[in-house]
Amino acid sequence: MRQNPARRAALVDAAIEVLAREGARGLTFRAVDVEAKVPNGTASNYFANRDDLLTQAGARVYERLEPDPSVFAGALEGPHDRDQLVALMHEMVERLSEFRSGYLAMLELRLEATRRPELRAVLTRQIRADLDANVAFHLKIGMPGDATTVVLLYLALNWLIVDRLTLPDVLSEDRVHDLVTSAVERLLPDEGS
Amino acid sequence: MRQNPARRAALVDAAIEVLAREGARGLTFRAVDVEAKVPNGTASNYFANRDDLLTQAGARVYERLEPDPSVFAGALEGPHDRDQLVALMHEMVERLSEFRSGYLAMLELRLEATRRPELRAVLTRQIRADLDANVAFHLKIGMPGDATTVVLLYLALNWLIVDRLTLPDVLSEDRVHDLVTSAVERLLPDEGS
Repeated sequence: MRQNPARRAALVDAAIEVLAREGARGLTFRAVDVEAKVPNGTASNYFANRDDLLTQAGARVYERLEPDPSVFAGALEGPHDRDQLVALMHEMVERLSEFRSGYLAMLELRLEATRRPELRAVLTRQIRADLDANVAFHLKIGMPGDATTVVLLYLALNWLIVDRLTLPDVLSEDRVHDLVTSAVERLLPDEGS
Repeated sequence: MRQNPARRAALVDAAIEVLAREGARGLTFRAVDVEAKVPNGTASNYFANRDDLLTQAGARVYERLEPDPSVFAGALEGPHDRDQLVALMHEMVERLSEFRSGYLAMLELRLEATRRPELRAVLTRQIRADLDANVAFHLKIGMPGDATTVVLLYLALNWLIVDRLTLPDVLSEDRVHDLVTSAVERLLPDEGS
């Protein structure tokens, strides 16, 4: 069967919505067809099996979570001080929170990865590459802080987003905002900035 | 029907194992009966509905994640310095990681909470109370650091455990260990210890 790249992308995007709404076990070819508003049987022609669909959904979530090129351009320009790092982290937390279904789908995929070694291998490669790239970019452009700063920000801000999206009344929006700022200020080593 | 407290506890514990292994959508009364090795139909006599079962599983996970009283006693004794706080955080990360099924079940419940307002309310109360109690205990016994230290440690160490349990090859065990130590050292305010 001939495959259409735009239709494939639409099916993968539909899979992300199904994952977020129904959980990993709710992700069936039929549910994807319904979500994408395509004829029954379409998804099964585009993906070899559920593992293939899950893996492609994982890759697509990370693709869609990438910042706009203007964010990189702004980061390159400087001034490379603590305030700029605070602003970048606020931008990241807002960006990830706004793609709510993508972030929740990613959590579903992580849980599904405990049951599927192939998915686990794909997500591990993806996240390790992202984390290494973030550390390398941070150090290359001369942002304050070291590799440990970047990894600890990755840890703290990810769980902040988990709380915000799954149990939004645990931390108020004002507190979320202040915690992003405090996380950066505290995670710089003493000689930082 | 008369209910037996020990049997109820065994059914809730079985629900935690099913949640971790099969995901929230795999949690059926029948799966709980099989996991608990009790006659088919038992769980449906102990819980009003799936919401009731999910809520009780949530409460039970937190109960089982509580530290041993000796951990509190040791914390009360002191010396209330940075090294003691590092040791306590290592203890917490190991304790939560070792109850792997409980931690994974808790993540499943958080995702399920995005779909069930009643479960969301129960988990929100639980986690807010835990976080407030941790902050109050920390300040009362005079540990170094402030409320922001405690909340930022909660954020960073939770995602560290998520990574460790779902994608264990992203961060090596040595790196996990070092990150716990670094998180404490950096998250103390400058005047701390």
